Amino acid sequence: MKAEIISIGSELLLGRTVNSDAALVARALAPLGISLRHVQTVGDNAARIGSALELAARRSDLIITTGGLGPTDDDLTRFAIADFAGVPLVPNEEAARALRVYFGERAQSPNQERQTLFPENAVIFPNNSGTAPGCAFPLASGKKIIMLPGPPSELGPMLESSVIPYLASFSEGAIYSTDIRTFGIGEGAAAHLIADLMQGENPSVAPYADVCEMFVRVTAKAEDAEKARALCSPLATEIRRRLADFVYGEDIPSLEAAALAALLHAGKTVATAESCTGGLLAKRLTDLPGSSAVFGYGLVTYANAAKEELLHVPAPMLAEFGAVSPEVARSMAENVRLLAGADLGLGITGIAGPDGGSVQKPLGLVYIALAAEGACWHRAMRPQGRYPGRAWIRNMAASNALDMLLRHLDGRDIKADSSI
Amino acid sequence: MKAEIISIGSELLLGRTVNSDAALVARALAPLGISLRHVQTVGDNAARIGSALELAARRSDLIITTGGLGPTDDDLTRFAIADFAGVPLVPNEEAARALRVYFGERAQSPNQERQTLFPENAVIFPNNSGTAPGCAFPLASGKKIIMLPGPPSELGPMLESSVIPYLASFSEGAIYSTDIRTFGIGEGAAAHLIADLMQGENPSVAPYADVCEMFVRVTAKAEDAEKARALCSPLATEIRRRLADFVYGEDIPSLEAAALAALLHAGKTVATAESCTGGLLAKRLTDLPGSSAVFGYGLVTYANAAKEELLHVPAPMLAEFGAVSPEVARSMAENVRLLAGADLGLGITGIAGPDGGSVQKPLGLVYIALAAEGACWHRAMRPQGRYPGRAWIRNMAASNALDMLLRHLDGRDIKADSSI
Repeated sequence: MKAEIISIGSELLLGRTVNSDAALVARALAPLGISLRHVQTVGDNAARIGSALELAARRSDLIITTGGLGPTDDDLTRFAIADFAGVPLVPNEEAARALRVYFGERAQSPNQERQTLFPENAVIFPNNSGTAPGCAFPLASGKKIIMLPGPPSELGPMLESSVIPYLASFSEGAIYSTDIRTFGIGEGAAAHLIADLMQGENPSVAPYADVCEMFVRVTAKAEDAEKARALCSPLATEIRRRLADFVYGEDIPSLEAAALAALLHAGKTVATAESCTGGLLAKRLTDLPGSSAVFGYGLVTYANAAKEELLHVPAPMLAEFGAVSPEVARSMAENVRLLAGADLGLGITGIAGPDGGSVQKPLGLVYIALAAEGACWHRAMRPQGRYPGRAWIRNMAASNALDMLLRHLDGRDIKADSSI
Repeated sequence: MKAEIISIGSELLLGRTVNSDAALVARALAPLGISLRHVQTVGDNAARIGSALELAARRSDLIITTGGLGPTDDDLTRFAIADFAGVPLVPNEEAARALRVYFGERAQSPNQERQTLFPENAVIFPNNSGTAPGCAFPLASGKKIIMLPGPPSELGPMLESSVIPYLASFSEGAIYSTDIRTFGIGEGAAAHLIADLMQGENPSVAPYADVCEMFVRVTAKAEDAEKARALCSPLATEIRRRLADFVYGEDIPSLEAAALAALLHAGKTVATAESCTGGLLAKRLTDLPGSSAVFGYGLVTYANAAKEELLHVPAPMLAEFGAVSPEVARSMAENVRLLAGADLGLGITGIAGPDGGSVQKPLGLVYIALAAEGACWHRAMRPQGRYPGRAWIRNMAASNALDMLLRHLDGRDIKADSSI
């Protein structure tokens, strides 16, 4: 089945928004054996949306639109699609009810009811994260159109809960896929280590970049899920063997999810003391429900005075080694552990930039420490090459802290260095 | 001038890479008055690259390709373009010299010299961050093709150093746009208040949703930037008047950027005490460089014991009112202000879910307090309708805290309630 995405939104053509929707949809299609051949992006313009649909219907079997389903006057997708397909839009009672639940006692702003209009015979995909549902319906030619909302926070869950199951019903047999998650190795380096395994079609093996980490997805298609899983299993084992030291988990969404699971499993608690990451590590640890069982105390000691007053980092240590030093990172980790009465403490101090670097302590230098009862380790994250930006440094520093925590809990070697 | 981007690379169609190149190019074109109408994405396939070029040449005056210029066998862009344009590829001596400098003593991997081949009469854009230069050349029709490398770290600098100066010499007029940022009103409700202003073409007025907030963009095109700006100005003023109470700034990227600017302007400092947001507020305040001048202390008191021990929230208060109460939020804000010696204190306590709600204190209920010398305010964020998810609640709670801070600093009314 040849598929095509039409991404709709003038904000994409103004560069205001990066088209992450197309990547989300692409990732959902690949394991289903659906071949994505084209992506078109057009603005909020009925004529150009219409032309894009005509072109797509000539060359593709499945057309997936993203965006333009909201209540405002420049949300034209549903009208352009109905025009193109020559079908009327009819109100969907289920969608109207969901909209009333969504708004509760609040007054709905005008035109919200547009979001309940769908082509006749459409299968509706509920939106559990926003107001505009998606849908799928057949063209007279037998080709299919799927309309999805633009916000990635709505589109992502809808792909998982509705679109993938819908498309899987057209695909013969079952698909199984497994993600081997790694930290500390780049996509290119990982691909090099498993290049020979990436030649096959079924199972297929593909590397994906994620924020400050990468994962390898193994996907197989077979008569049923159990057989597909059995096809994946030996390859997944071999990939884990080759990427051994970098693998932190399988089918787990992130380092913080793995850390939370490992802390719960070990029955241990952690406390955090952050300087340059400014709360990002605590934020990531509490992104997931259930984190209160393992995390109760976090300190953001952004100022040196805060490090002294709240964490009792000795003033002479700050004066002698500077705030960005292994000594201060270790003191932060040890002291926050004691202060919180936690089993483990994490400390982060560094230079996120873009200002503040020096020859001795360049931009991007971050020290991360992990304290346990009677032991403390630290890792230096050192910049290599060009400055990668403040957000990247902060994310990478928090990821290194989570990696150290996981390695300690898993009994793996806690590395003392991380080149970035 | 109508422009079109052709993004080339199978990794884009597999979802391994998000197409950030298209956004980078789009952002470069808008201020030049060049109207980007389409983006096409195709894989590393000569026939499909050729078809994309044909389509683009029929409807656009300027075609910009990204990707497929490297040395490997699936880098087909230069060959497909030469075929399409009917021009020979000739070696460029300047590019060959730059490649020798890049590799220095290292051995070049095979086929590197392909990167020195360009259409006759092409203007070469040097690549200061990688190996493949870009170029521009005219088609027989007078339309132009620009070829750019795929890695964003190479494309971004090349846009600045070569492509923008090259295109500026062909630009007709200039575009000016201004963003009116709001918090506390939805995209649909805002659009309703300014519906009549959204009818025009030049200036155009469009609402955009952002994370937990929305903004209205006014864009005009004129002979020069000053005239375009003058066209926007009265409309922007009228929009600010209509959305009055919700507007927090113009041409500023986020609530946290506005809060940082307002704190710097007022010469004041803020400290944070967070429960359900778990460090997100501190993280957002420190996302921007320069925040250390206004923020030094943040406490994440996720556990009740942490609220008592670190923030001295009275145990009887916690017992009588519960951790999620106006009293505790105010105590957190006041006490963190004193602890940090800051001018202002922010406290957040609530139920982010998905577990932990009750009839009296439903999921999504959050109390946010702002303390100043001799005064304290609080706001209740109350769930309406469906539970919008943990990430949304946390983001909205942090945004409400920043909104209260900004309202206080701007002398606007600090609202006591926020329906979500």
